[in-house]
Amino acid sequence: MAITILKGTVVSAPALGRLDVTENGYLVAEDGVISGVFPVLPERYAGVPVEDLGNALILQSFADLHLHAPQYPMLGTGMDLPLLDWLNTYTFPTEARFADPDYARAVYRQLARELVENGTTRVCMFSSLHTEATLILMDELEKAGVTGYVGKVNMDRNGGENLQETTEVSIRETLRWLEACGDFRHVKPILTPRFTPSCTDELMAFLGKLAAERDLPVQSHLSENRAEVDWVGQLHPDCPQYWETYAKFGMWNSRTVMAHCVWCDERERRAIRDAGVTVVHCADSNQNLCSGVAPIRAMLNEGIKVALGSDIAGGDHLSMFDVTAASIRASKARRVLDDWQTDFLTVSEGWYLATSAGASYFGEQPGFAAGNPLHAIVLDDSQLPQPRPLTAAERLERCVYRRQRNAVRTVWSAGRKVFSAE
Amino acid sequence: MAITILKGTVVSAPALGRLDVTENGYLVAEDGVISGVFPVLPERYAGVPVEDLGNALILQSFADLHLHAPQYPMLGTGMDLPLLDWLNTYTFPTEARFADPDYARAVYRQLARELVENGTTRVCMFSSLHTEATLILMDELEKAGVTGYVGKVNMDRNGGENLQETTEVSIRETLRWLEACGDFRHVKPILTPRFTPSCTDELMAFLGKLAAERDLPVQSHLSENRAEVDWVGQLHPDCPQYWETYAKFGMWNSRTVMAHCVWCDERERRAIRDAGVTVVHCADSNQNLCSGVAPIRAMLNEGIKVALGSDIAGGDHLSMFDVTAASIRASKARRVLDDWQTDFLTVSEGWYLATSAGASYFGEQPGFAAGNPLHAIVLDDSQLPQPRPLTAAERLERCVYRRQRNAVRTVWSAGRKVFSAE
Repeated sequence: MAITILKGTVVSAPALGRLDVTENGYLVAEDGVISGVFPVLPERYAGVPVEDLGNALILQSFADLHLHAPQYPMLGTGMDLPLLDWLNTYTFPTEARFADPDYARAVYRQLARELVENGTTRVCMFSSLHTEATLILMDELEKAGVTGYVGKVNMDRNGGENLQETTEVSIRETLRWLEACGDFRHVKPILTPRFTPSCTDELMAFLGKLAAERDLPVQSHLSENRAEVDWVGQLHPDCPQYWETYAKFGMWNSRTVMAHCVWCDERERRAIRDAGVTVVHCADSNQNLCSGVAPIRAMLNEGIKVALGSDIAGGDHLSMFDVTAASIRASKARRVLDDWQTDFLTVSEGWYLATSAGASYFGEQPGFAAGNPLHAIVLDDSQLPQPRPLTAAERLERCVYRRQRNAVRTVWSAGRKVFSAE
Repeated sequence: MAITILKGTVVSAPALGRLDVTENGYLVAEDGVISGVFPVLPERYAGVPVEDLGNALILQSFADLHLHAPQYPMLGTGMDLPLLDWLNTYTFPTEARFADPDYARAVYRQLARELVENGTTRVCMFSSLHTEATLILMDELEKAGVTGYVGKVNMDRNGGENLQETTEVSIRETLRWLEACGDFRHVKPILTPRFTPSCTDELMAFLGKLAAERDLPVQSHLSENRAEVDWVGQLHPDCPQYWETYAKFGMWNSRTVMAHCVWCDERERRAIRDAGVTVVHCADSNQNLCSGVAPIRAMLNEGIKVALGSDIAGGDHLSMFDVTAASIRASKARRVLDDWQTDFLTVSEGWYLATSAGASYFGEQPGFAAGNPLHAIVLDDSQLPQPRPLTAAERLERCVYRRQRNAVRTVWSAGRKVFSAE
């Protein structure tokens, strides 16, 4: 049996708002599966080599539950338009380039590497509508050590000039893509109607049926922007609310992931909670595109599953440290919007959402629970000025706010060491 | 005569919302004073060595018009409280440590270096109430190459247990501090009543008189937080508005700098504009402390002078790239608050506020205008992924959003090269 023992300041998020800290603690995994965090190394591991990381922080790695791989080339640019104009002006032309497999290979290799270097080891990701490029993306993620779900986008209406399929092609390519996905071990397919305005009823019906037949999860967008919500209402006059355009085609269950959910009212939120749908909060993107501020505190109070997404490239950062800080900031904007009546997210709450909450979508228990696959990062904050001694919680807070390149020194994903800065 | 010629992609902000780009351009300074930006090197400079920076961006350096030097040790921590509680719990105890000159020396040396490394060459800065530490701060800034104003804080009421002076001591120490400031060439004193609740009328009257007698500028805080505004109203029932507590003591004129101004209504804004007071927008801090979102667009439309401040440690970033991005984000939060009726700040507008607008407080013309002292940074964005060719404006936008450590390669301040990463 292969045993991994990491020694350092082990910090994990076992519940919303709680941090467990074990100074000079031991995080142990057997054959890539966590057996526990121990203040003193249990006798049964005597003689096993210990990777002593000194004072470094040993943290759960991140889960990024919503991002668009083919928008990576435009990351950090072009954010002066609202959602629907932004899609047509910047996004669709950028995605159209992924018809070229060589281009896709080069970009996705870079993306996969950057994800791992930033400590993101689980994703729920949109590709473009291109089958080849989607398979290349999955291959590059698999090679780099990123786990999770990737979806070939379905889009048979309202696309760009070079970014639309016929219904027939969309169906055929989806089946062809699923055929070819079988070889990936850590990266699995997820059905991905881009959003309701992008898919005809015929295509939606096909995808819903396919999800049921093959037991596949579904990801999409929900109630991101007011103009979008109005548009969906016009497209589906039979549906009182946006979520029902997914539900009526059988794509509304506990494996469904819905990004944004900025404009979900109580009724829509009840439907989310009752079905066990996971909401992905994309704070940076919602602010950059002036979509609004999602009512995350209300969702958490109501028992809705909420995780975080970078949503590149509506979001401007791939690093989930930034995404965590952005979520905290957004919660403070929400507090101001709600006339100071809503509690903001604390750092430990933000950290939980960025790690344990996302990981739970992949079947893990919160924190470094025994039985979880080892997903962890080692964080070196010694480059930051140290004008006074800090607690582990303060160090974590500072890393969230003041993250810096190269602070992530080592990354484990699904039990494997997939990155080492040395 | 010493001539500096920098060749590269020269980008400057000559007006709000405008970027001047000169690809393969020459930025020329004679004895540290800019003579111009030229697409072709004028004949009179033939034979003068050219510092060829290749494709790098040559940009104006930053002006940070509001930050608290003694809060640097707590940067990125402790932001879970509103302003007045935050001051008492975190800030005042942190500042109290600067009674120790050795501690001050070590922290301020680090701060000065970090400012320069991040391309901030002009500041308007709060010290603590300690005279020795303030002089040490000025000395460290001067040595590091940071120019601008520093103020010994005055605070004879409502401080912390170890952070308050008697009125008599405050007056005496202010005079002693001013005596000792004479030797600094690039760092000058600015009178600094912490904020109205911190200063008795007697102390305010003294400071106003001193400002007039010695022709000294004044900096303070204005209308940051609703509870603070109410408190000031109770302390000065004779003043209809907060600004009048400064005006009635003669500290309200075109050299006055007021940080935050989140809650300034039309009447208070008119007073700001009519007096030519400079407003410092501290977007990150206002969001972190849930103070609110300052009406920056209204201020700009009304002709108010607005610059940016990092406001460490209410703000969580020293880098003005981040502060620029934070200001843009805050303007989008403001847009949402105002039901989408207010225009957000574009990147080029944010860039202007972070550079030219702040520099104008120090007497400079906008952009790389002839006659300005050379304040410039060389920015290397080649470490960022380059999946497609970008315009200079896109490169700048991306650096604002995706800044990274070590991207600032060289810094000139007041004509001197003060930092070089090589």
